[in-house]
Amino acid sequence: MGQATGTPVLPPGCSVAIVGLGLMGGSLAAALRSRRPDVHVFGVARRPETLQGSLANGLIESGSTSLGEVIPEAQVVVLAVPARVIAQQVGEVAPQLRQGAVLTDLGSTKGEIVAAMERSGRSPQCVGGHPMCGKERSGLAEADALLYKGATWAICLTRDSLPEAVGLVAALATEVGAKPLPMKPGHHDAIVARTSHLPYVVAACLARAVARDVSDDDIRELSAGGYRDTTRLAASDVGMMLDILLTNREQVLASLSTFREQLDDLVALLRSADETGLRHYLEQARRERRLG
Amino acid sequence: MGQATGTPVLPPGCSVAIVGLGLMGGSLAAALRSRRPDVHVFGVARRPETLQGSLANGLIESGSTSLGEVIPEAQVVVLAVPARVIAQQVGEVAPQLRQGAVLTDLGSTKGEIVAAMERSGRSPQCVGGHPMCGKERSGLAEADALLYKGATWAICLTRDSLPEAVGLVAALATEVGAKPLPMKPGHHDAIVARTSHLPYVVAACLARAVARDVSDDDIRELSAGGYRDTTRLAASDVGMMLDILLTNREQVLASLSTFREQLDDLVALLRSADETGLRHYLEQARRERRLG
Repeated sequence: MGQATGTPVLPPGCSVAIVGLGLMGGSLAAALRSRRPDVHVFGVARRPETLQGSLANGLIESGSTSLGEVIPEAQVVVLAVPARVIAQQVGEVAPQLRQGAVLTDLGSTKGEIVAAMERSGRSPQCVGGHPMCGKERSGLAEADALLYKGATWAICLTRDSLPEAVGLVAALATEVGAKPLPMKPGHHDAIVARTSHLPYVVAACLARAVARDVSDDDIRELSAGGYRDTTRLAASDVGMMLDILLTNREQVLASLSTFREQLDDLVALLRSADETGLRHYLEQARRERRLG
Repeated sequence: MGQATGTPVLPPGCSVAIVGLGLMGGSLAAALRSRRPDVHVFGVARRPETLQGSLANGLIESGSTSLGEVIPEAQVVVLAVPARVIAQQVGEVAPQLRQGAVLTDLGSTKGEIVAAMERSGRSPQCVGGHPMCGKERSGLAEADALLYKGATWAICLTRDSLPEAVGLVAALATEVGAKPLPMKPGHHDAIVARTSHLPYVVAACLARAVARDVSDDDIRELSAGGYRDTTRLAASDVGMMLDILLTNREQVLASLSTFREQLDDLVALLRSADETGLRHYLEQARRERRLG
């Protein structure tokens, strides 16, 4: 997957099974169908209506509610369900992989999932993945063939992922416009705890704190873009975020501890009306905000 | 300013002096010039270059670096400098008002400013104001004739503001597309502490907490829209925000206290991995986020 080997591509006519046809899985199917029409896309969903909808939209070529009917047919299997479900499903899916096939996932946390891959008995065929993009709204209806465009796609190897397996996952990411970036699962989880999960938690606390003290009408009339943007993440899908927080609990707690120290420092400066200290604090915050 | 008297309008050919030609003052001048070309707009700025720029752009008809040269000529005087400067300037400007003229302001906090107006000896001619809009970037170069369009413009009376003075300020707001909304200064400050100042403080703490634990490169590569939006306010003009925090310190500290309780609740739920409690907390946050 380096520069030396050129841009990684999926083999012509290869088959990709996507387990879970929500926002992430549906968008992956849509992107593959539009950019690589020769690739066979299969779907697995819990509900028959989701499968029927995906077939009717042309997102998948065939599908089933049963993993056993689809997994053995695919060269690339992508678990696109919530993080805790992925961690459970790996043990069920891995033994069904055909020879040379690869199992990957789109889960937002990687430590527990890669650990499950390493326990699965098919660790060399497994590679964890996390495309860093999303929307507040979830579900197949939100699927978007351009969702992955330009996104960083973290790639987390098991202790013995085969280079061919890693290459296929990097190819999958590249085909849909994302940028594969290899990293250790623990490093991934430590970073996303800060850049993604902490902002969500802070937004939720803020939404609740404001609602404690201000009437709904006053919020509506007397808030502007600042409130809207700072609380935006509080509107995220709760089920998905719960899975993320509970599979990355230690790192999120550690990030909250740092956040709280920062909050305490600021409260102390404001309480003592320390203008010089406050200015320094706020200027540092302004400089430290980084954008990609 | 009620429905009974129709939409309030500025008298034909009236004169408005704007003290401070930054984002807010410059945008007010631009909006008046484009929507009411018969109104005379005068400017006061500290730096001669700012005046020259405003004259060259046609934002103002005439101007001076001296309050004494402009204030006595105007029917409406608008202080558009930082909140703490407004609180100081009121005492200097009020005695220079001509008979029947009104003094108002665009400051983001109202308690200290309205108190200064009440101490000024010209309290009946004074009316506090706060158009609830802005941008991160400040300065005349950012001036925008549409900045006020659709914004709520809080109007805070002194203990004895004359109805005519209130009417002129409501007319000013309406002329530039904003919606005047009368309220008590204390109520205003309590609400904006929660809907505006607390989100800023939280964004600043978040930017600093993330920078403590994550390298700049990792933030750039591994953050997405969530980090960007939740920290957006941290990029606000520090001088302006410092003025706001220091003139609304008690309310901001009270809002931080509520926020911290919410944070403590969430940390406790996460620490004990209380899934039911966490789900309830996050669902409530999702529901409680209100948009105007």
